[in-house]
Amino acid sequence: MVEMRKPIPVEEAIHRVWEHRFTGEKECVSIHDCDNRRLSETIIAKHPVPPFPKSPYDGFALRSEDTLEANRNNPVPFKVVEHIGAGQVPEKSLHKGEATRIMTGAKIPDGADCIAMFEVCQTYEQDDHSYMSIKRTMESGQNIIGKGSEVAEGEKLIAQGTMINPGVKAVLATFGYSQVNVAKKPVIGVIATGTELLDVDEELQPGKIRNSNAHMIVSQIIRAGADYRYFGKLADEFDESYETITQALELVDVLITTGGVSVGDFDLMPAIYEKLGADVLFNKVAMRPGSVTTVAANGEKILYGLSGNPSACYVGFELFVRPLVQHGLSNPNAFPKRIKATLADDFPKPNPFKRFVRIYLTFEYGKAYANLAGMDKSNVVTSLAHTTGLMVLPGGSRGFQAGDEAEVLLLDGEQGQREFQLI
Amino acid sequence: MVEMRKPIPVEEAIHRVWEHRFTGEKECVSIHDCDNRRLSETIIAKHPVPPFPKSPYDGFALRSEDTLEANRNNPVPFKVVEHIGAGQVPEKSLHKGEATRIMTGAKIPDGADCIAMFEVCQTYEQDDHSYMSIKRTMESGQNIIGKGSEVAEGEKLIAQGTMINPGVKAVLATFGYSQVNVAKKPVIGVIATGTELLDVDEELQPGKIRNSNAHMIVSQIIRAGADYRYFGKLADEFDESYETITQALELVDVLITTGGVSVGDFDLMPAIYEKLGADVLFNKVAMRPGSVTTVAANGEKILYGLSGNPSACYVGFELFVRPLVQHGLSNPNAFPKRIKATLADDFPKPNPFKRFVRIYLTFEYGKAYANLAGMDKSNVVTSLAHTTGLMVLPGGSRGFQAGDEAEVLLLDGEQGQREFQLI
Repeated sequence: MVEMRKPIPVEEAIHRVWEHRFTGEKECVSIHDCDNRRLSETIIAKHPVPPFPKSPYDGFALRSEDTLEANRNNPVPFKVVEHIGAGQVPEKSLHKGEATRIMTGAKIPDGADCIAMFEVCQTYEQDDHSYMSIKRTMESGQNIIGKGSEVAEGEKLIAQGTMINPGVKAVLATFGYSQVNVAKKPVIGVIATGTELLDVDEELQPGKIRNSNAHMIVSQIIRAGADYRYFGKLADEFDESYETITQALELVDVLITTGGVSVGDFDLMPAIYEKLGADVLFNKVAMRPGSVTTVAANGEKILYGLSGNPSACYVGFELFVRPLVQHGLSNPNAFPKRIKATLADDFPKPNPFKRFVRIYLTFEYGKAYANLAGMDKSNVVTSLAHTTGLMVLPGGSRGFQAGDEAEVLLLDGEQGQREFQLI
Repeated sequence: MVEMRKPIPVEEAIHRVWEHRFTGEKECVSIHDCDNRRLSETIIAKHPVPPFPKSPYDGFALRSEDTLEANRNNPVPFKVVEHIGAGQVPEKSLHKGEATRIMTGAKIPDGADCIAMFEVCQTYEQDDHSYMSIKRTMESGQNIIGKGSEVAEGEKLIAQGTMINPGVKAVLATFGYSQVNVAKKPVIGVIATGTELLDVDEELQPGKIRNSNAHMIVSQIIRAGADYRYFGKLADEFDESYETITQALELVDVLITTGGVSVGDFDLMPAIYEKLGADVLFNKVAMRPGSVTTVAANGEKILYGLSGNPSACYVGFELFVRPLVQHGLSNPNAFPKRIKATLADDFPKPNPFKRFVRIYLTFEYGKAYANLAGMDKSNVVTSLAHTTGLMVLPGGSRGFQAGDEAEVLLLDGEQGQREFQLI
């Protein structure tokens, strides 16, 4: 007798998994090791920017009031009393008729209230001393970048949960964050099941295939920003499988198995969930591929029983595992970014189920186009190599044509969204 | 006397740098360590997929000719002679009236030419033996995934230069690539110059700022897929700077310095290029920010003198350094992906120079929008944290309004293009 399973809508399945999301831990890392980690603290301005009034140009600092009489026919002379580069500190205050030669980025000397660029100044030597003259009036504050004019002290600059990119790292360095709190990477365990699986370095044998799912999932885990722990592959033997799975559960935050979740005679996972006493959240989803995806909660730990079929496994990870990883990493936009795109290709085959079709996105004339990444048979592994998004096609009796509009979930890149929504 | 420099168009500057692109080396890495590396070999199908005819369902393998008489009122019985799971190899050939119970993914037994799913079969026991019956006719080939029907042996699957993502990794595992040839990461040296620079862990001092550029550039190097080597920061002292730079050049493929390229009194880089005998490709570009960007060729090595200004430094890296890194990594699409987008914000200030404005991209109704990442002063570091693209605004006498169309160069994500093109 074949067990009958009742499929639930994909939105409901994601909702049930999301109820079991976990809060991640944080850890402190050096600025040298923080790339692509997510902030677990809000970055604030520890001082004003700039921390002192500074010059945006190479030129002369002077008192604007001394230029009042200057014009084309009346150059006003200044005695150059100091010469400072960026990083040097002016030591002299300016008095009437005095100027300081100053380089870009240097601090404005006391007394000065404007900067005249080299281009508007004449320099000359007289009696072994440097002078400059100017033929125009200057205004108070002209060419001075005021203290705190870019950023005020205490300003919140970057939100917790943001991924650290080159710009964020520049901000960290600017404000002296030599150490920074980031979200600790959750540890995701991976076990491949199936007597038919060979290791990647084994020769092909009759009836067997190489284990590609474990390598793929590990790569998806890395892309999602988590750490993985691979426990090897299991033959379809109940006792050994049960043993390995219970031991693995001790060592990870989340455990993924691939294969063995269908209703075939050698599909052991349902019986393992039962013996564990795990709460099966669902074991059938009204979607293609990935309809046999099973998720079970075992205390605090979540067990994902993904399909042994590569495409179903891939989609199952992105829809059901990745959002919880993102939440654990304190990413507020834990769900895949959803955009509208125009189909670049026909997809004529109707299907009663909601489908997640592998596509890659292109742009033309400011519009986003969804291109089929390959034949959309759920057992074709090669098309996954070019996939950058999943096009969501509603179930129904009609196919789709190039030019139709469809929703696309983006898989790479850093964007996301707070809620899971589909058509 | 201030040196006069003649600015060249940014396209010409990129062209001159591109002439000095270098071919990267390759190295062999384990499949476990290949994520986000670029392939330096073409991946081919080492065997057909599937390698044997297999079943897409759990069901019974049988001879379609035996079902000719079957209909609703005439169930045709079969004796079940074997029971095989995925990974098990059928040992028995089927003769008239025989069937093999078979699981998804298992090899089709000899003699069988179709699979009847469990759902259309009745099973029963009789005289201690298993039987099944079917009430419909089957066609030859029905529900059989033929050998090589997905991929033929020898087919080119993934091009050299492709970045290894989860889908690519699945393909590598499928075809037994336990080791794979990838592009060796070029080594990019980084030196920050400027007496005003403090280390990230130093307290702020009058007239000084922390060195944020080096951390930012290191992060840009990592994002570009290269390795970095940081040689520290230099005060504006000629002999020490010259010494450090000549030593660093021995150890890297490309050397980036930040700061010291302007025409200020303490800007040492022009004199250092001269003493090295390096060929200065340009020292002024008609663009904002980054107009003082300097690039020099010293034999096989390229020296980038990027501006000390954070935004100019950032833009200089993405426009002039990253494409050469990508080429060295055998990425055929070495230049930043250019798309058309709609301005989401006003940018009213006209400017005679071509500008690269920091934006982040959003999508609405299938259209791409360019949102200003912050105030576009070239000295505002915080806006870089949210930057995902550079909007290219042509120089001229007018500003731009929300709703206008503009070109955007994408900075994150894996896309690129073969040629550098601007408006």
